Amino acid sequence: MVASAQGHSSQGAGIRAAIRCGKWSGHTSGLAPDLVQGNVVILPAGAANDFLRYCQRNPKPCPLLAVSEPGEFMLDALGSDIDIRTDVPQYRVWRHGRLESEPMDVVDLWRDDLVTFVVGCSFSFEQALLDDGIVLRHVSEGKNVAMYRTSIDTVPAGEFCGPLVVSMRPLRASDAIRAVQITSRFPNVHGAPVHLGDPALIGIERLAEPDYGDPVEVRADELPVFWACGVTPQAALLQARPEVCITHAPGAMLITDLSNRRLASF
Amino acid sequence: MVASAQGHSSQGAGIRAAIRCGKWSGHTSGLAPDLVQGNVVILPAGAANDFLRYCQRNPKPCPLLAVSEPGEFMLDALGSDIDIRTDVPQYRVWRHGRLESEPMDVVDLWRDDLVTFVVGCSFSFEQALLDDGIVLRHVSEGKNVAMYRTSIDTVPAGEFCGPLVVSMRPLRASDAIRAVQITSRFPNVHGAPVHLGDPALIGIERLAEPDYGDPVEVRADELPVFWACGVTPQAALLQARPEVCITHAPGAMLITDLSNRRLASF
Repeated sequence: MVASAQGHSSQGAGIRAAIRCGKWSGHTSGLAPDLVQGNVVILPAGAANDFLRYCQRNPKPCPLLAVSEPGEFMLDALGSDIDIRTDVPQYRVWRHGRLESEPMDVVDLWRDDLVTFVVGCSFSFEQALLDDGIVLRHVSEGKNVAMYRTSIDTVPAGEFCGPLVVSMRPLRASDAIRAVQITSRFPNVHGAPVHLGDPALIGIERLAEPDYGDPVEVRADELPVFWACGVTPQAALLQARPEVCITHAPGAMLITDLSNRRLASF
Repeated sequence: MVASAQGHSSQGAGIRAAIRCGKWSGHTSGLAPDLVQGNVVILPAGAANDFLRYCQRNPKPCPLLAVSEPGEFMLDALGSDIDIRTDVPQYRVWRHGRLESEPMDVVDLWRDDLVTFVVGCSFSFEQALLDDGIVLRHVSEGKNVAMYRTSIDTVPAGEFCGPLVVSMRPLRASDAIRAVQITSRFPNVHGAPVHLGDPALIGIERLAEPDYGDPVEVRADELPVFWACGVTPQAALLQARPEVCITHAPGAMLITDLSNRRLASF
């Protein structure tokens, strides 16, 4: 996978260097749009075993791009010289399910039993949709995508369980059909939509009131189209309340050297 | 393409032999479900040139499986020993756009300037949907699929023009998404849907009153999903009113030796 990303690796390394030395601590949306960005979850080995099974059983919301060995902090599978302790712009540290701090690095918190999970992110397929000429309203309006808890339960594993969380993008029917085609090519970053049309059928009562992110208008000639969302594992982590858990801060993702285009399955 | 169909060629040849000697003159729906069936249009060379351009400009409703040389009545590209003058169960003969007769063969009408077009048919992708476990209500209920004239104009060529005609299948959202994936693999038999959801957006006022075929219920948890339909060229033929035109009778298709599975593009 590293070989596939060689053309972009200097760009990714440059951004990570700026992040590592504290020059960038904000959102990564729009940074290096050709490169894969990932959701980060770091857990002690015991909880990590359960979480790995949770991801395996729920591949649409939790598509795994990489899982480290316990204690390993260099993520060679995702790019050159990636140190997961320093290369995320901002972290969140959780103790027993409660947010404790939001540090810029986790060097002092590192332990030999911590396992890192990098989960695919919709930024990758959004770039493919934009490249195809499809307008994404939340991008045009500079908003976070609207996300909703659904009435669909994920498959539990150990203490990990909870609702499927979905992101929603309003599209005209012809764009929705094209979006199914495009995102089907990206199974490692949530793949095809899980639902489109009537939100009530998946337990969403009010589109104007998302559970996460910002609301966005759905016009009369549009359908709401719903994709499984990487916030799903965060909801499961709140349920499982592990002794300690480190995640990225919302929107401040890990930038890898992998190419979004190379994620396409055909 | 003949080579791809060798495994089924004896089945197709057997059915065509029964048709040729008059033992079968009815609908072909459900006959040889693994084999490609085609819509047939036969035109004199002058009108054929216009119609070929019409099909080229409107590939979703008019996907061409084969076009003969003028006068050629053996269709070797579609299978073994296919004689287009005898191997369709029932024909319709049109003069200047008016239906003249519905013969069982057109041997006596054959001319050296007639060009045969075989256009892909939704039977091929319906089989792929059924094989995937998707229930198609019109099939379950033994009905013709519901078809509608839309407000979408086809691209004209010569005298050929007219509305896009679509077929409609009611599906739950998850099946609709899966159906987009499956039918996208079959560009030669109409491919992905052209619309889903609100029928009014493509000029359809009443789903319960199709322009062709039989109405079918759309339940509260379903979306109507619309595909470009092989009836579109028939509507264009009525507009063009060529001196003579021979088509298959509705539902009485040409059975080829090609395998539906081999039509899949990936």
